[in-house]
Amino acid sequence: MLAYRLIERKRDGGRIEPGEWRALALAYASGYVPDYQMAALLMAAFLRGLDRGETSALTDAMLASGATLDLSHLPQPRIDKHSTGGVGDKVSLVLAPLVASLGIAVPMMSGRALGHTGGTLDKLESIPGFRTDLTLDEAKAQIERIGCVLIGQTSEIAPADRKLYALRDQTATIESIPLIAASIMSKKLAEGLSGLVLDIKRGSGAFLPELDRGVELAQTMIRLGQDRGCPVVCLLTAMDRPLGRACGNALEVEESIAALKGEGPPELLSLTYALGAEMLVLSGVAPSHDIARRWMEVSISSGKAAQKFQQIIEAQGGNPAVVDDPALLPQAEACEIYAAPRRGVVARVEPRAVGRGVIALGGGRRRIDESVDPSVGFVITARPGDVVEAGEPLATIFARDRAGIDEGQAALRQAIFITDEADPPLPLISHRVTAGGVEPYDGG
Amino acid sequence: MLAYRLIERKRDGGRIEPGEWRALALAYASGYVPDYQMAALLMAAFLRGLDRGETSALTDAMLASGATLDLSHLPQPRIDKHSTGGVGDKVSLVLAPLVASLGIAVPMMSGRALGHTGGTLDKLESIPGFRTDLTLDEAKAQIERIGCVLIGQTSEIAPADRKLYALRDQTATIESIPLIAASIMSKKLAEGLSGLVLDIKRGSGAFLPELDRGVELAQTMIRLGQDRGCPVVCLLTAMDRPLGRACGNALEVEESIAALKGEGPPELLSLTYALGAEMLVLSGVAPSHDIARRWMEVSISSGKAAQKFQQIIEAQGGNPAVVDDPALLPQAEACEIYAAPRRGVVARVEPRAVGRGVIALGGGRRRIDESVDPSVGFVITARPGDVVEAGEPLATIFARDRAGIDEGQAALRQAIFITDEADPPLPLISHRVTAGGVEPYDGG
Repeated sequence: MLAYRLIERKRDGGRIEPGEWRALALAYASGYVPDYQMAALLMAAFLRGLDRGETSALTDAMLASGATLDLSHLPQPRIDKHSTGGVGDKVSLVLAPLVASLGIAVPMMSGRALGHTGGTLDKLESIPGFRTDLTLDEAKAQIERIGCVLIGQTSEIAPADRKLYALRDQTATIESIPLIAASIMSKKLAEGLSGLVLDIKRGSGAFLPELDRGVELAQTMIRLGQDRGCPVVCLLTAMDRPLGRACGNALEVEESIAALKGEGPPELLSLTYALGAEMLVLSGVAPSHDIARRWMEVSISSGKAAQKFQQIIEAQGGNPAVVDDPALLPQAEACEIYAAPRRGVVARVEPRAVGRGVIALGGGRRRIDESVDPSVGFVITARPGDVVEAGEPLATIFARDRAGIDEGQAALRQAIFITDEADPPLPLISHRVTAGGVEPYDGG
Repeated sequence: MLAYRLIERKRDGGRIEPGEWRALALAYASGYVPDYQMAALLMAAFLRGLDRGETSALTDAMLASGATLDLSHLPQPRIDKHSTGGVGDKVSLVLAPLVASLGIAVPMMSGRALGHTGGTLDKLESIPGFRTDLTLDEAKAQIERIGCVLIGQTSEIAPADRKLYALRDQTATIESIPLIAASIMSKKLAEGLSGLVLDIKRGSGAFLPELDRGVELAQTMIRLGQDRGCPVVCLLTAMDRPLGRACGNALEVEESIAALKGEGPPELLSLTYALGAEMLVLSGVAPSHDIARRWMEVSISSGKAAQKFQQIIEAQGGNPAVVDDPALLPQAEACEIYAAPRRGVVARVEPRAVGRGVIALGGGRRRIDESVDPSVGFVITARPGDVVEAGEPLATIFARDRAGIDEGQAALRQAIFITDEADPPLPLISHRVTAGGVEPYDGG
């Protein structure tokens, strides 16, 4: 009866009170409220909205449905980064070890590939032996020992969110700002953070393509953090093209390792430095963005950042030798060049089409229970704005076999557009949003 | 994937095409589309609406999900009556035998008690031995033989509607005009009708209390019928008070038997005659409402109508002797008068409160799988507008035991309001809606 009354009230545009959200989250997590009632409530919430107090109460209710990582005894600040997801976005793999190498604790909880975007957990698991399913106790011990852990949302953390998210994914109720914000923040707050940096993607490959919706999400999450003593800073970044060159699990790990040695694609390094500078300044460790940036450059050039990644891999059961020899990562059986079909300017490299291509190759998921082939994917060297000749190599396709190569060729024909003229792509980082407001990003 | 795309489209205010409704209804009826996806779609449809074409396509899709009763070989017209449901509404029990006694075939499919309203099937089943779960073949044979059958929605008829209705009941998506219209019409069209008369309730005890929503529902159903060669006439009738005096299964059967002998409460007889006249004229059997009314009066006074009810009871396995001796119906163990707590005017007899009282006595359902005690209920003699003295009997409570009597007393205190002055109740029949438009009811 509780669920019925709440569905009815939300359907009619009414408000659900904090105690009701709490009861609902617990009843749903324990199976007392069935999926179909929650699905009706989610759709009503999607279309009617949640106000600020409801979003806050839902966040707390999901947080309270599970355990939290208590890291308050640590001497160093605990900062995490979260991205709303994109194609080729392997920033976490570079950023977590880099920032941890400079004395910040990074308890990073990530997700799996779903929809057209990749997932950090799947990328990490392409490292032979790497375990992402640590218990909270194991995660805590690792943070204490080496200052960083890269894990999945355990069943202990926000189980109501975990179950709700899976349901939203099946019922077309993902793209709701209050539901997205409450979902992310309930997990992040469970990490016991002292600060959070958000990378909110915009453009055709983002879950919320429009700038104003991205800003609204940023402001919602900033308020949720602020009310709970966890300051949040957001950067709005480009997802009208894949980030970097590699798209596919092991290929992205390889590119991340290159970036940790200072050799990655410029956009990947720029975004990593920008987000890292926010983390270092937010934590109070670095006095300014410029100084933070210099520290990160030194950590990379001295090999400290790459060593930290090795340490993390070893601690989580993976083979740390991949950092020195990326050829130890799973290798695709077949590879082939994708050549420009004509002369012209690269007008667009569509992230959704690239992401769907990775799935077609077997490197992503159509359903949550599908397994992923870590070796396949694309390395796309063509960037929007490049002038290319007919027949010039634009990308390399990595596949299981000849049929996969053909799938990859077809996918890239739908993804890379060459025209006579092209609009400029989105700036890599366009805006910075803090509790103080929205400002254009000054390049940092 | 089909369901997901359709949810997304309806969520964004788009249109679902006829072929898609058909595929969806079949996939849902067969269990391929899960309840939670359908629940999200229903809420999106509730809030975004369905246009005329979609409502029509959904009706056809639900109709096509099951079998139909082919009665086209019968020489006589096939007419049914459907009510949107109320408290004390036992019209079907009087009307079906009455109209059938005048040469119309009445293949009547009814529902069970749910929410605050009663259900014709539960009332019929209070007659010892009465079976409502006939197969379609049995129903057809009975119609051929005696011109009337009173059954439930078999699993063969519109299974998609059956399943959808149960889901709507759990997800607060009942009160949507297109969904209501499609649900009713998919079942009625499966009866192979040549015409349909609708009793659309208005007032505080109706599912759609407001007049304008009732008219909208009437017009939606008239169009659905018209497009399929089944003319529909609607009367808008009062449900700001229970219909007649008896509320409770066996008590309502007893009152219906009295009405079939011309002895029932005046409002029950008036509404039965009004709906019956529409059925007889719509079928082409009677040349005018006045003549139809006179025929019905003769059928009642001659005993033909009561005999037809006996015939139906016997054909469906019940004890026909109840018509001559209603004491053969289940009798409550305890009964007690409810007396006026003060002097004044009866301002309101609230149907919802009375209906909830019947449920509290054990005579209705909180959940679809609960059993019903046929003997309990109320006989409320007080009518809105009556001037009463303190201590004057207003109703009789029929219960299982002393505790039930106390529950009944408490329920009636919440249901019957006595004040110094009172607004007049709604007219019993206020409007008549046909394909030609809406007109005030002229008293007929």
